Amino acid sequence: MSIAIAASGFDARDWADWLPRLRAALPHESIWPLADCPNLAEVDIALAANPAPGSLAALPKLGFIQSLWAGVDRLLADTSVPAHIPLARMVDPAMNIAMAETALWAVLSLQRDFFSYAAQQRQALWLPHPQRRADAFTVTVLGLGQMGAQVAQRLQANGYRVQAWRRAPSAAAVPEGVQLGTGSAALPTLLARTDVLINLLPLTPDTRGVLCAPLFNAMPQGAALVNLARGAHLVEADLLAALAGGHLRHAVLDVFAHEPLPPDHPFWAHPQVTVLPHVAAQTDPATAVQVVADNVTAWRACRVPAHLVDRSRGY
Amino acid sequence: MSIAIAASGFDARDWADWLPRLRAALPHESIWPLADCPNLAEVDIALAANPAPGSLAALPKLGFIQSLWAGVDRLLADTSVPAHIPLARMVDPAMNIAMAETALWAVLSLQRDFFSYAAQQRQALWLPHPQRRADAFTVTVLGLGQMGAQVAQRLQANGYRVQAWRRAPSAAAVPEGVQLGTGSAALPTLLARTDVLINLLPLTPDTRGVLCAPLFNAMPQGAALVNLARGAHLVEADLLAALAGGHLRHAVLDVFAHEPLPPDHPFWAHPQVTVLPHVAAQTDPATAVQVVADNVTAWRACRVPAHLVDRSRGY
Repeated sequence: MSIAIAASGFDARDWADWLPRLRAALPHESIWPLADCPNLAEVDIALAANPAPGSLAALPKLGFIQSLWAGVDRLLADTSVPAHIPLARMVDPAMNIAMAETALWAVLSLQRDFFSYAAQQRQALWLPHPQRRADAFTVTVLGLGQMGAQVAQRLQANGYRVQAWRRAPSAAAVPEGVQLGTGSAALPTLLARTDVLINLLPLTPDTRGVLCAPLFNAMPQGAALVNLARGAHLVEADLLAALAGGHLRHAVLDVFAHEPLPPDHPFWAHPQVTVLPHVAAQTDPATAVQVVADNVTAWRACRVPAHLVDRSRGY
Repeated sequence: MSIAIAASGFDARDWADWLPRLRAALPHESIWPLADCPNLAEVDIALAANPAPGSLAALPKLGFIQSLWAGVDRLLADTSVPAHIPLARMVDPAMNIAMAETALWAVLSLQRDFFSYAAQQRQALWLPHPQRRADAFTVTVLGLGQMGAQVAQRLQANGYRVQAWRRAPSAAAVPEGVQLGTGSAALPTLLARTDVLINLLPLTPDTRGVLCAPLFNAMPQGAALVNLARGAHLVEADLLAALAGGHLRHAVLDVFAHEPLPPDHPFWAHPQVTVLPHVAAQTDPATAVQVVADNVTAWRACRVPAHLVDRSRGY
C-alpha cells in the first residue's frame, strides 16, 4: 500500500513544499510523486492537485482520493475516476484566511477608490474622491461554505454591511451580523442593495454561468463584481458589456475559463478589470499537510474522512 | 459674536458639505465663510481648514480656533496666529476609521503582493508569488495617538503582528496584543523586525525628516514604508535611494512636501511607489460637525474644549 501525489503544474518548489512535509506527517506511509512511483499497483490513496485527466486510471487499487485544492470540479469532470471512490476536498484553515484577506483587500479597494487612484497615478492626476463609509457599503457573498463564511465574517468584523446567499437550506452556522438569503427567490432582493458581489460558489452544472447579464442587471448601477471561485461561473461577454455600458463599475477576477489567462485576452488591458493569477487563496502546505494526514489516517482506520464530496450536489 | 470658517482649497461641494450642517448643529450661532463674513470684528471663533497664512489676523476678537483637519502643523507655523489663543485639533471618529482602512489596505496589498500583481497585469504576466501569512508579517506603527491606536488595533484584529512606537511615555492606552516601544532607544529593535512601517507621527521640529536613510537602513532588506502623516516627515532623496538600491521594496505615500504632487515629480511614474492624493483619512462632515459643536459649546460656556493643542510639544 502506498500513496501517490498526482499533480500537474507542480514545479520544484511545489514538490519541495509538499513531499518532505507529507513524509514527515505520515512516517509509516510510502509517498511518491505519481511519475516516480516504484509500483503503481500498490497505490491505494491518491493526493490530487489538478492531475492530468485520466492519470488516476493508472492506479488499479485506488480506494481514496484526497484533493490538495479546495475546488474539485476538474476531478469530478474526469470520467476515468470511478464514481464510487470517496473523494475529499481540501479544507485548509490557512487557505480560508487567505481568501478572507483577498476579499477584504478587494472590498477596501472598491469602497475607498484605490483602483481609481492607481489609474490616476499613471496619468499623474491628483484628484480626491468623496470618501465612502464601510457601514454604508453592502457586500453580498454568494456561497456560504467554509470559505464564504470566513469571508462574510471578516468583512462584517471590518464594519461592512454583509449579506450572504445560499442556493439551498443548510444547517451550517451563519456568522453573526450577516444577513442570509436562501434559494433563487431570495437573490433579487439581496442583489438590489449590493455594492460589491463576491462569488465563492462551488462550480456545478447549476452554478456554471451564474455571473451573467440578468444577475448584473439586478444589481444597482455602479456595483462591482469580485470572482474568487471559478472562471466558468462567469459569462465573460456579459461582464464586458456591463462594464462598457457603465452598469458595473469594476471587476476583480482571480479565476478564468482558460488559465493562465491568454496574453491577448481583453481582461489584461481593461481599465475596469483587475486580474489576479489565481492567487486569492493558495493551499498552504504548512497547515494543509495535517488535514491530509488526518484524512489518510481516518481512511486507513476505516473511519469516514472529513469533507467528502457529495457527487449528487457536485461539491 | 460670530463664527468664521477660514478655508483654502474648499470647493462648492466642500461648502455644501459643511455650512448647512454646522448651522443646523449650532442654530444660535452666526456662521459664515470668512470671505462672506458681514462683520469681521464680531468673529470670536474660527473654524480652520488650511487657512491662508495670515488670514486669521483679520479677526481682532478671535478667542478660539477649532481645526477641521487632524494635522495642525500649518496653523502652528502661521506666526500671525497669537500663541495664547487656544487651538483644538479635529479628532473625528469617522476619520480614525478611514485611516485604519487605508493602513489595512496598504498592509494587505504589501503582504499579499497585490501591488506586484497590478504591475504584472500591465505586462500581461501570469506569475503567482508565494503566499505570506499575516501572523508572520510584522507591522510597526510610528505614533500611537488616536489614529495610531485605531490603526494598530485594526491590524492586530486582522491577524498581523503589530508593534507601535511612541516618542515619549504616555498614559494613553495601548491596544491589546500590540507591542509598545517608547523613546528613541527602543526604535532600532522594533525596526529590525519590521515588514511594513506606517508613519502616523504628528509633524513637529523633532519628527521632521524622521523617515530618512538611517531609519530605512535599520529595517530588514525588503521592508516597505507607508507614510500617512505629513510629507515633511520624509526625506524624499533617501527614499528614492533606498528603493533604487533594493533595500526597500515599496512605498505607499499619501502626503507630500508639495501638494498637489507636481506632475513632473519622480514618484508619479515610479514602479515601487504608490501615490495617493491625500485621501487616507478625510474629515467626514457628517460626524465632525458634532465634534465642532461640542467644542464651540464648551468654549462659550467657559469649559475647556477637547483635544487642545499643546504648543510646547507641537500637537
